[in-house]
Amino acid sequence: MLQKPAKGLMIVVSGPAGSGKGTVLADLRRDKAFAYSVSATTRAPRPGEVDGEHYYFLTREEFEKKIARGEMLEYTEYCGNLYGTPKKEAERVIESGKHLLLEIEVQGAKNIKRAFPHAVTVMLLPPSFAVQEQRLRDRGTESEERILGRLERTKEELQDLSDYDYIVLNPDGGIADATAQIRAIVKAAESAAERFPDLAKHYFEN
Amino acid sequence: MLQKPAKGLMIVVSGPAGSGKGTVLADLRRDKAFAYSVSATTRAPRPGEVDGEHYYFLTREEFEKKIARGEMLEYTEYCGNLYGTPKKEAERVIESGKHLLLEIEVQGAKNIKRAFPHAVTVMLLPPSFAVQEQRLRDRGTESEERILGRLERTKEELQDLSDYDYIVLNPDGGIADATAQIRAIVKAAESAAERFPDLAKHYFEN
Repeated sequence: MLQKPAKGLMIVVSGPAGSGKGTVLADLRRDKAFAYSVSATTRAPRPGEVDGEHYYFLTREEFEKKIARGEMLEYTEYCGNLYGTPKKEAERVIESGKHLLLEIEVQGAKNIKRAFPHAVTVMLLPPSFAVQEQRLRDRGTESEERILGRLERTKEELQDLSDYDYIVLNPDGGIADATAQIRAIVKAAESAAERFPDLAKHYFEN
Repeated sequence: MLQKPAKGLMIVVSGPAGSGKGTVLADLRRDKAFAYSVSATTRAPRPGEVDGEHYYFLTREEFEKKIARGEMLEYTEYCGNLYGTPKKEAERVIESGKHLLLEIEVQGAKNIKRAFPHAVTVMLLPPSFAVQEQRLRDRGTESEERILGRLERTKEELQDLSDYDYIVLNPDGGIADATAQIRAIVKAAESAAERFPDLAKHYFEN
């Protein structure tokens, strides 16, 4: 008897500033088919934060050892602290049958695709650079320097998207469509042929 | 400016007798996102059948020449007549922006995947061989010999499904789910990254 695969999927969503990624991911995360992984960080816990619940709080030495041992799925440095997804944590989510939804930039997505070729990678994009720039300016929350920095970063990142399986456009007013598109991508990936190893064996067994 | 790709997709659906393929395809074909291609055949036109509308009626010599010239996307022989999809016809549908939905058996799907690596191939399956056999018997329309022939054929066909991108299960009562699953697969494929060549160029142009 053939059955739906019990494992969840690894879904990576990337998108430059102004792509609407935050809104789209917040919407997807409301869906109980997805689960969070608990990230690891070297930053100090804030009052009320519980180790293993909000984060795994590690010393820099511990974190770097995990990197060296290949125990981090991906990691990044931000404001002098390391943040990352422990491989074990990602595997725990996937074994539970829920999909792991990761928000990761281009280099991290490339690393994940190398380690997990079946990870599904999605790049969410505004329809054009001009629209992206307009959105960043319309926010009115960032300095000109920061906006230009983000736009420069986008120029670099979009040069090589060969590790992405899907490109999802998010034109103005397109959040609902973009979210539906990512849901379809996830639904399709649930029946990817590679998720049915030993298909003939199970089919001919009763 | 990035835009949705103008071309349609080539969607190949296979499934053994008893998979529910006929019902699923009939449902999908009601959707205006899909278009028919006009098949070619060597059989004689029946009263009222119009060349180029119901079929392209060819002599066996003409048909075989087309095969030899690589002008047939796929073809099969049935009751002494050849039936097939002319490549030009398939291209016409795809250029129109509609998706070409092809119902093809395993060997034909393999040939299409070789010629068009971006074709999306779906194998629709009953949940098990036992369920398949039960469905064929429950139909009550075929001789025992024919039922056994179909089951034997399934045994051969399921040995190598490596040319299929997706496996869709159709358990009893599952037609609506199976159809929705194929719709999700098509929707996902609409945003496949390979459909956005020159992405950066279009993105940075206004």
